[in-house]
Amino acid sequence: QVALLDIDICGPSIPKIMGLEGEQVHQSGSGWSPVYVEENLGVMSVGFLLSSPDDAVIWRGPKKNGLIKQFLRDVDWGEVDYLIVDTPPGTSDEHLSIVQYLSATHIDGAVIVTTPQEISLQDVRKEINFCHKVKLPIIGVVENMSGFVCPKCKKESQIFPPTTGGAEKMCQNLNVSLLGKVPLDPQIGRSCDRGQSFLSEAPDSPATLSYRNIIQ
Amino acid sequence: QVALLDIDICGPSIPKIMGLEGEQVHQSGSGWSPVYVEENLGVMSVGFLLSSPDDAVIWRGPKKNGLIKQFLRDVDWGEVDYLIVDTPPGTSDEHLSIVQYLSATHIDGAVIVTTPQEISLQDVRKEINFCHKVKLPIIGVVENMSGFVCPKCKKESQIFPPTTGGAEKMCQNLNVSLLGKVPLDPQIGRSCDRGQSFLSEAPDSPATLSYRNIIQ
Repeated sequence: QVALLDIDICGPSIPKIMGLEGEQVHQSGSGWSPVYVEENLGVMSVGFLLSSPDDAVIWRGPKKNGLIKQFLRDVDWGEVDYLIVDTPPGTSDEHLSIVQYLSATHIDGAVIVTTPQEISLQDVRKEINFCHKVKLPIIGVVENMSGFVCPKCKKESQIFPPTTGGAEKMCQNLNVSLLGKVPLDPQIGRSCDRGQSFLSEAPDSPATLSYRNIIQ
Repeated sequence: QVALLDIDICGPSIPKIMGLEGEQVHQSGSGWSPVYVEENLGVMSVGFLLSSPDDAVIWRGPKKNGLIKQFLRDVDWGEVDYLIVDTPPGTSDEHLSIVQYLSATHIDGAVIVTTPQEISLQDVRKEINFCHKVKLPIIGVVENMSGFVCPKCKKESQIFPPTTGGAEKMCQNLNVSLLGKVPLDPQIGRSCDRGQSFLSEAPDSPATLSYRNIIQ
């Protein structure tokens, strides 16, 4: 039983990616009910509370924190084996709140996603620094958008060049695990936009293989 | 005379992109002095206040807002013709604060940057919605990472496929100007990582042309 909680309050993408756009949260006697993708996968996002997917949630930190607390307290998650939390980038309200609100429970750790350029790695180093400061274990780093293979001539291009060695070098330097690298495949974006699973739509692609390796 | 203010407090990238990493802000009798790239271009960012570029700024909204206020009030910008503010993505503290603090002045408007996929456009529609709600004029939208031309075979690939028509369609639907599309060129990332100007490093590239068209 898995619960997926989207705490990107101002940019919730999980409903669209999971193919749940237009779904609404239902109120039951025991609280809000998550929206179920499958019987064993429940999802909660501020996206389910908006009347239109284009509605802006114009909220400062305290209101965002209040909703995150409600998601943890008032959602009837049922018995769950795993709670996966998707955060926006950064080291601010959402990150501090989720760590604080879950401090009484055991958190397995954070999976951090980056792209190969130094401009992204710089932000990710800050996020690693954040995890150390709040004593959140780091499960590892995933490098996304690692390289693009031209569908015509098969030449690989580094679209986001790893000018300082990419996630691999950073992980070595900071003594953090590199979980894997996912190549740039336009089909991933297409699947996300349609709310379909890339893993089942392109089961034999190198990117799927890379995802499967990371998951293991 | 141009002033560039980076209000991405938790992920300041401007110092690196402008080649100013390691620079410090100086205190003068009239306040903080910006860091100058050229005589007519002064820059301010929280990045100049950190002892290391990997330091995390672990601040909730109110502290971020306080620093933004300080940047506007305590920095000795001198006489400036243009103040350009770079914000993080979203519709939260940073965005509300900058609009509020500048409400007594005239704001020309917002330039909004997106990529072509629906997942990004969804967030950008929220940002457009935000601008309408706070009565901030929208100068226009720039589509970034629009297409990639293989350096070997010259075939163009849509790396981030515009599954719902990209920024063009969105701008038509929402009655907002499309300022231009910038193709994906790995050299842009390389220039940013090195703090060099892509416009002068690759003066004849299609991306430079596109930037120049947008600027005009």
